[in-house]
Amino acid sequence: MTLKLHNYWRSSASHRVRIALGLKGLPWEYVVVNILKAEQHATGYTAKNPMGQVPTLELDDGRMLVQSLPIMEYLDEAYPEPPIMPRDPYARAQCRALAEIVNSGIQPLQNLKTTEQIKALGGDVAVWPKKFIADGLVAFARAVEATAGTFCVGNRPTIADCCLIPQLASARRFGVAIEETRLLAIEERCMALPAFAGAAPDRQPDAVRT
Amino acid sequence: MTLKLHNYWRSSASHRVRIALGLKGLPWEYVVVNILKAEQHATGYTAKNPMGQVPTLELDDGRMLVQSLPIMEYLDEAYPEPPIMPRDPYARAQCRALAEIVNSGIQPLQNLKTTEQIKALGGDVAVWPKKFIADGLVAFARAVEATAGTFCVGNRPTIADCCLIPQLASARRFGVAIEETRLLAIEERCMALPAFAGAAPDRQPDAVRT
Repeated sequence: MTLKLHNYWRSSASHRVRIALGLKGLPWEYVVVNILKAEQHATGYTAKNPMGQVPTLELDDGRMLVQSLPIMEYLDEAYPEPPIMPRDPYARAQCRALAEIVNSGIQPLQNLKTTEQIKALGGDVAVWPKKFIADGLVAFARAVEATAGTFCVGNRPTIADCCLIPQLASARRFGVAIEETRLLAIEERCMALPAFAGAAPDRQPDAVRT
Repeated sequence: MTLKLHNYWRSSASHRVRIALGLKGLPWEYVVVNILKAEQHATGYTAKNPMGQVPTLELDDGRMLVQSLPIMEYLDEAYPEPPIMPRDPYARAQCRALAEIVNSGIQPLQNLKTTEQIKALGGDVAVWPKKFIADGLVAFARAVEATAGTFCVGNRPTIADCCLIPQLASARRFGVAIEETRLLAIEERCMALPAFAGAAPDRQPDAVRT
């Protein structure tokens, strides 16, 4: 069995799924989709992913899964151990809501397609995403007050941590100061785990060091 | 038992949850949050929803759930019949991916917070969201080719339909021509059901007729 992850080192949605695959301890193959060369819009790729986005998870039977949160939920249903979601329905909803603060509340405002449109309006793409990132991290920090143990939800990593860690990396890339000490403490505990350390953008085969 | 939905007639995320509550046949109370009067930022409301967004589902024991997709997933876990998600893990992932095309792919680009920032850049808020809506509907239509029966995923309504129908309403509001005939056919079948018809924005108590 080989799972293939079509992804890009710096894509935060790709980064989330790399962490989840690592937490599950699953073997997988890295397939590079260079979004700076628009490879996500090439016909061969859009046949796999109609939105022309990364990541895409290719299952061993050739079926494709798209969108980072649905992929992570799939991994937790198809490979239940170790869990990356709590089991109680209310806690699961809290965990998913944290993930959505990043997934729908921040990431769509900082991604390449959006910032290209901002540029076309004469906006400064180095400035535009900052407010959304900063506001989102404040909201995330407030929300984890109700859920956190050593990780975002309780005492084991979940999909909320899989979303938070890439978002903190993006925040730094956009020059947003991270003042939420609780989030930084969670990040430190995550980065001590091989699944998180190994998924970091600069550890990937297509990483470009500047 | 009374569930309370803190929501706003025209909010597409609120609209999604109203449909889901109707599909589940659950009794619930409508609590108005007028986002045009910034009531979502009032202290009383942000204590319920730290992001200052609608909707919030208040459970009968006073606990709060936020974010439309996590709320709908909660409803399906807490009240399993009738299901609003398929049962097979792969089909569930496809269903969630459709929902995310709307939830993270379109809605964050058309919502009030974003369009206010676009206005501040000198952009035209009547034009800005159109490309994201049109591109998203094209992608949605392409993705449902693999999943649809009479509804978005198979032959019963799911959270994908709960997301699609409000998005089509928003598309019309923004003046986007909907050319995807398959989506219009699904909409027609949805609107024949009381859960969808009763959740329509102009049927809500806070609706403003113009």
